[in-house]
This record gives sequence, C-alpha cells and structure tokens, in this order.
Amino acid sequence: MKGVRFHKPHTLVTKYFKRFCSISSTYVSNSYEKVLRGSGISDSVREAQYAVRGEVPTRALQLEEELKHNSQKPYDHIIFCNVGNPQSLANPPVTYVRQVLALCDFPELLNSSLFPADAKEHARRILKSAGKGGSGAYSNSGGVSCIREDVVDFIQRRDGYESSVNNIFLTNGASDGISLIMKLLVSSSSTGVMVPVPEYPLYSALLCLLGAKPVRYYLNEDRNWSIELSELEKAYEISKKSGITISGIVLISPGNPTGQVLEKSNLEEIIDFAYRRRLVILADEVYQENVYTKEKKFVSVKKVLRDMPGKYQDVELASFHSASKGFFGECGRRGGYLEVANFSEEALEQLYKLASINLCANLNGQIAMSCITRHPKKGMPSYSRFEEERSNLLSSYARRADMIQTAMNSMEGCSCNQVEGAMYAFPRISIPLSAQQVARSQGKQPDVFYALSLLEYSGVCVVPGSGFGQKPGTFHFRTTILPPEEDFPKVMTSFQKHHEWFLNKYQG
Amino acid sequence: MKGVRFHKPHTLVTKYFKRFCSISSTYVSNSYEKVLRGSGISDSVREAQYAVRGEVPTRALQLEEELKHNSQKPYDHIIFCNVGNPQSLANPPVTYVRQVLALCDFPELLNSSLFPADAKEHARRILKSAGKGGSGAYSNSGGVSCIREDVVDFIQRRDGYESSVNNIFLTNGASDGISLIMKLLVSSSSTGVMVPVPEYPLYSALLCLLGAKPVRYYLNEDRNWSIELSELEKAYEISKKSGITISGIVLISPGNPTGQVLEKSNLEEIIDFAYRRRLVILADEVYQENVYTKEKKFVSVKKVLRDMPGKYQDVELASFHSASKGFFGECGRRGGYLEVANFSEEALEQLYKLASINLCANLNGQIAMSCITRHPKKGMPSYSRFEEERSNLLSSYARRADMIQTAMNSMEGCSCNQVEGAMYAFPRISIPLSAQQVARSQGKQPDVFYALSLLEYSGVCVVPGSGFGQKPGTFHFRTTILPPEEDFPKVMTSFQKHHEWFLNKYQG
Repeated sequence: MKGVRFHKPHTLVTKYFKRFCSISSTYVSNSYEKVLRGSGISDSVREAQYAVRGEVPTRALQLEEELKHNSQKPYDHIIFCNVGNPQSLANPPVTYVRQVLALCDFPELLNSSLFPADAKEHARRILKSAGKGGSGAYSNSGGVSCIREDVVDFIQRRDGYESSVNNIFLTNGASDGISLIMKLLVSSSSTGVMVPVPEYPLYSALLCLLGAKPVRYYLNEDRNWSIELSELEKAYEISKKSGITISGIVLISPGNPTGQVLEKSNLEEIIDFAYRRRLVILADEVYQENVYTKEKKFVSVKKVLRDMPGKYQDVELASFHSASKGFFGECGRRGGYLEVANFSEEALEQLYKLASINLCANLNGQIAMSCITRHPKKGMPSYSRFEEERSNLLSSYARRADMIQTAMNSMEGCSCNQVEGAMYAFPRISIPLSAQQVARSQGKQPDVFYALSLLEYSGVCVVPGSGFGQKPGTFHFRTTILPPEEDFPKVMTSFQKHHEWFLNKYQG
Repeated sequence: MKGVRFHKPHTLVTKYFKRFCSISSTYVSNSYEKVLRGSGISDSVREAQYAVRGEVPTRALQLEEELKHNSQKPYDHIIFCNVGNPQSLANPPVTYVRQVLALCDFPELLNSSLFPADAKEHARRILKSAGKGGSGAYSNSGGVSCIREDVVDFIQRRDGYESSVNNIFLTNGASDGISLIMKLLVSSSSTGVMVPVPEYPLYSALLCLLGAKPVRYYLNEDRNWSIELSELEKAYEISKKSGITISGIVLISPGNPTGQVLEKSNLEEIIDFAYRRRLVILADEVYQENVYTKEKKFVSVKKVLRDMPGKYQDVELASFHSASKGFFGECGRRGGYLEVANFSEEALEQLYKLASINLCANLNGQIAMSCITRHPKKGMPSYSRFEEERSNLLSSYARRADMIQTAMNSMEGCSCNQVEGAMYAFPRISIPLSAQQVARSQGKQPDVFYALSLLEYSGVCVVPGSGFGQKPGTFHFRTTILPPEEDFPKVMTSFQKHHEWFLNKYQG
C-alpha cells in the first residue's frame, strides 16, 4: 500500500458524538479497560500448551527473519524439523491428487487434454455427488456422499470388515475429528481421558480447552515405546481415586512423537482394558501408510477389535485419518476422516449435530481424502506415475528414518529407538548437570534450553521432549525425518556437531 | 463394493484371546456398557441447538429420498431455502476465483494458455509466499503471509483506516474465527455474551458448548430489526443481577436471519454501550457485499469505531468475514478471516496459540479469501468477465430480495421487513390458534409445525423462527433469497398457496 495514506484514529471531527457525552455521563467511566487481558482471558486457553509451534519454533521464525538481513550465523537458512509438514521441505505431492483437485475447482478443465481420463472420471464422479454447487457448496455435514463411500471402501479393503457411510465423518484434518469426539466425551470437569506420554500435544490441549483432565500413561521407552497394561492400570487407579471419571483412552500408532508401530497383541491388551474399564478408544492412525520396517505392518484398531471375540464387539471406537501424512502429505488441504464404531444412535445423532454447527469440512480437503482412499489402480492411465511417486517417497522416508536413527545413536549419551513408522525420531539425550543448572537459572526446561542451543548453533529447529511429556529426569527432542534426502548428511552432521559442542561446553 | 464380502464380527476363531479370559477374570464385567449415551454424552453438546440443519431440514432430506422413489407429492424435488448455500442453487461461481484455485492446486497449469495472465500472476504470488510446499503445506497459523496482506489492503481500502497483518487470522470459514474468539472470551461458566434475537444460532451454540451464557437482546422488528439501546441496557442489567459477567456483544450486519443493514448511528450507540459496559464487540460482517437497497451502504464497525473520538479507541473488536457469502458464495472452501482491533499483546499471543493448535486454516479457503480481497481491477485481463459476473449476480439477488418481500407481504397475516441485505427474508406469520393447539399436541413449536407443513405441501424447506429466537407469541420463518431467479414466480406461488391452504384448514 505504498503511497496510500490512511487515517489514524482520533483525528476526525467528533460531530456525531456530542449526544454520547450526555448518555455516558450517567455512567462513571473515564476509560475503557481491556477485557481480554489477565484473568479476562479464558484460563483454559492460557493453560493450553502446544509446543509444536511453541517457544523454539517461534524463535526459529525470528531467526529466519534475521538471516535475511545481516546475520553472523554459520548457516543461511533454518531447517524446520518441528512440524510434520512434508511438502514444505520439498517432498513432492502426488500428481493425481493435484489433478483431481484442480478439475473439481475449475470444471472447465474437464474439456482439456492436459488431464488423464481417470482423473477426469474421478472429478466427474465427485462433482455429480456434490450436486449443483460442486466444490463451491457446503456438503452434507458428514461430507460429500460419494467420498464417504470411498472411505468406507478403503476401510473395508484394509480391514476385511464392514464399515458404513453413517459412521464416517469427513473433517478439516484429523484434528477436527479428534476435537468432535473430545467434545462429545467430556461431560464434566471431572471427566478424564487417558493419553500417552510422550503424546502428540493436541490431545492434552483439547482436554485443557474443554476443562477436562488428561490421565497420563507412560509408554515404555525400553520396549520401543510399547503400551504396558500395568502402567494403564496404575494411571487409571490413581486418577479414579482422585475423583476423575475416565471415559476414554487415546492411542497413537504409528506413534507421534515416538515412531513405534504397536503390535497386534498390544492393541488387543488395550481393547481388553477399554472393555473392562468401559472406555471409548480414540485411535490416532494418521500415519497408517508410514511404516518403514519389514518386520511390522500397520494393523488398525478396528480390525483387531473385530478379530476379537463377541464380548468386545460393543467397545466404542473412534479412529482418525488425515490427508496430511502418508506419502500424500497434503497438509494444506486440512482433509481428514473420522470413523466411529459401536456408537449408540444417540451418540451418532449428537455427533452429526456437532458437525453441522460448523456446516461441513472444506471440500478441497474432502476431495483430497477421496483421492487418498480411491487412488489409481493397476491398468488405469495414472497408475504407473502414481506408483512411482508413492514408492519413491516411501522408500526415501524409510532410508531417512534409518539414517536419523543411526546418527542419533552415534551421539554420546544419546539413544534412539527404531523409527518404525510415522515421520519422527524421538531420541533421548543426556544433558550435563551444569547445562541443566544454566537452563533452570534462565527459567527454562533443560530440553528447551538444548533445543534452543541446537537452533542457534546449527539452524535446525526441533521440538523439546517436554512439549510431548517424558519421564521425569529424562530429556528428548522430536525431529521429523522430512528434510530432503540429499540434505541428510549435512543435517545429521549439524545434530552431531552441536551435540559435541554442547557436551564440551557444559561437561567442561 | 458389489460382489465383495466382508467378515462380520464374531465369526473369527478366537485363538488369540484365551489369555484375556484369565486377565479379565479379576474384573467382573459381563458386558461392555456404552459410554456415549444418556448422561455419558456431554450435556453441553446435547443442549446445543443448530436449527439451520435441524428437524425441518432433516425431514427435507428424507423427503428428497422419498421423491426418488414413488412419491405421491405434487412436486418432484425439494427447494432448499434453509441454508445460505448459493452455488447449491445454481448461483454460479466467479470464474477468476476458480482459475486461481486450480492454478495453485496444480501449478503445472501455469504453463497452460487456458488461463488469463492476471490469474496466473495471482497464483504465482501466493505460491511464492506459501513457500516450497505451496498449497500442500501447512501455512503459518495465522495464514499465508501475502494473503494476510491482501486482507489488510482490502480493509484499508474499505475503511480508510490502518489495519495490520498481525491482527489478521485466516480461518476455516467465519465460524472458525467466531469460535476462536468465543474460546478466548469465555473465562468461566458465569461468562455471558450478548447475542441478538433473532440470531444466527452459531453464537448460542458455541456459548452452550463452552458452558457460557447467551445474554439475549431483542432486535426491534417494528424499526426494521434495529438495535435499541434501552433493550441492550435492560438485557445487560437483568443478567448482571443474576450473577453473569458479561464480556462481549455480538452484532450481525447485514443481519442474519433478519436482512437489515444497521445504520451508522446505531453502530455508534452499540460501540458507546460496549465502551461503557466494557465489552468486546464481535461484528459478524460476512454479508458486507450483500446490500440491495440504494439508501443504505455497508459500513464496518471498525470504521465507525475509528471515526469516533479518542476515548473509544481502545474498545476491543473482532470482525468476521467469509468466502461463503457476497457474490462469491464459495461455501465449500470454508474460507474466512478474523480481524481483531485493540487487542492486548497478551490476547493476541493467546489467540495465535489457539489458532496454532489446529495448525492452520485450509489453504484452498485461504486462497479464496485472497481472490475475494484482491479481485481483478480495471485494465486487467479478467476484469470485464469478473465485473459482469459480479453485477449480474448482485443485481439478481436484489431483484429476488424485492420479490420475496413483496410476496410475503401479500400473504394474509404475514409481514416482512425490507430485505436490505444478506441472503434472507424473515417474515412474521400469524398462525391460527387451532393450528397452534395441534402443533403443541404434537410436541412441536407452532412455527416448526408451520414449516413442516410448508415442506410437505410444497417441497420448500425453510427454517422456523424459533431456531433463531423470536419474541414470545410471534412466529416467523427464515427463507433464503437464493432459488434461481427464473424459479422465483413458482417458489413464491408455493409459499402463497400453502399459506392460503394452511389458513383455510386451521381458521376454518
């Protein structure tokens, strides 16, 4: 807006306002004291934490600005390893998805020869189901009908068990679906939901915003972040004794931030626990396509549950998927779905009403979910390109997962479980006592201090373990495996050099 | 999934589960009792109301299915006048918006000759600002930087006052921005926010979900739904005496469901009231482009506030805009923005954190907001087509607003204020006492009964006034002005014929 000048307030003639003086005079009010500060701002908002975009990433954004000017740093840009945002680190999109999205946005392109026949057919089918308004109209609050069918087909093929359109809700990313279920589940301030530690912090943040209680259970780092039944029982009993009514349990597999793929037998234990304790299971399965080890396969909680005997078949389950992860990585779409199983009619009705208050999920995200659950099959014009893009990216992620874990384990006092899946490593680091003291004297957690040091020293932005929770006295950080593969040697060296420098400085 | 058979639960061998029998035997639990039913479902969810997709629209969807089979009805499809969803009723999209969206979704199209140069330039600018990941990556939690700048420019041109990127948050539709502010504002269960009656029911629904109190003030139907200072004072005092701490006031202009455009002098009164009573103003201005009368112009609350004397310049204001309304009508994008003014640094920080918990608004919606706030100007290749589309649609809406109001006023015992703006008429209807009795004997509000009758008789789906609130003893319904102009005579006749039939039946 160069050259254009705008009024600043206070400068205009106040001719209209004389009458207010007389109205106002009956109220003694010399100045307006802001509402939204201190205790005027919701406590639960002030208390909610979301470290993925917290202190360290905020400093990284500042640093990025400084680097544009005359920075003395030994690096010229920030490597953002704080968010699972693949395309921002040049991991390419799947062409087919983008083609279908463009066709739905601008249907005139259906006449163009630039697009393969299967992408056009896909777009036509969606546009027909969405009705006259196409991608420009609100859909049914559960989502466009044919896309919910795509999700049903996808789940049925994956699990070998029936799914139903009435149990599918298309959402603005998985976060939105998780938020819907949490709202339904929190019936009072004494409601608790069990969440893993370390945990993707969305769960605790949502519970905090709803005024409810996270009931934390520790994952067992020594057994590759498995879930221990004894730990679940302990956490449950302690919270129950303190008056909390526990109504749900969250599990994340493949794990975020921990990268493990939970064993089928482990999932069975959790389902049995939920059965006995009468809990709704919230299964975060957004990384279901991201498994890098040949020894393990993703298995959905729904399939495990359906494989179990009859008495388990009423256990309530909500499972979440996303357009943002897998090899699609379409974070910007904010597409996702929520599948519920064994919900009462009443709960389904309330869920639908809740979804309808926000009208519907964005259509672009819905269409992305359609492409993800109904991608090109063998024999279709787009298949070979799709398959090449898929396997290139997934095999590269697998190599990166391996490299990062090797690098972390090569660092003194640092250990890192195998990155079996998802997009993260969560190494445990030893922080010298003197560094812990310096950190605390600055009012910082030692791992935040370490992550800030890493950022300043090397330009690599990670999230401190305290943002996800960790056993007292242990320190971790979460890094994504997403920097471009060709940059990996350099990024790994950055981690190692900083670690060496840090230990030298503080072990003295 | 024809021909494919899936397992049903219970049918598989239970070999894995013998050990659970022994674990489980220590807990006496013969069956799993569902968590999510009755009081296990959040009270606030059960109590939240959202009539726009409530009983009448739900029946309309059923009826639509019935019409596909062998229905005896005198109409062959449902005319959905319940939601402001323009494109679903064949009101066309703006081509330029769709072009830019397609280019951002599939940047290979930037090489195609199918697109005008200005749309390409627009897309390139957004993709550059969004960074490597383009439309496929999470953006900053406030939105893509250049799109926030577009919004700032738009507001500055509109108001002649400064705006700032730091005060702009791009959101998933206006609903999402409103939800952010409500979360920030509700600090306890005794928090109240003033909402108009009739009201777009999102506000009360959000307050209910947050466990807070809507403090209702009546709009004055006799003065074209204006806001009366005496009514504000009365509502405020009564609630304050009952222990409610009132922290905000919602106003909607142009009005939903009421279609009025508030006068500048009326806005000044409300700002003065907010100043004296220390309230955050929530200004729902999503219909700012939808003004149909030559006598009135939309004026933003921010401009009115900035025009006022110095002492008002600290009054906190949040204003909401959307991609879904105006002549764009891009409901499916779920694009919107929130501008805050006079917020403390602390409030801004908390707002940013809150936005970051959901990562960011969907990029497709953000890009739509860019096109809406930075549309083609005179001299650009897309200008004439854009201008033609804009003026065709807005002038047609104006004619439809006029027709609907004329038709409503022609009906016996029915009166309808001028539809000055937005997308709705909210006529007041007289319902014969005998019809009211029949309604109540069926456990229905009389206006719900009327709307259901209209639906069954004529296939026209409207929302009963009770879904928005109305003075006790009065009855209304909300209809959109969105059916295609060529269908208007038929739709108006449907309203009139049903009304006549209804009066005959119940006055008889």
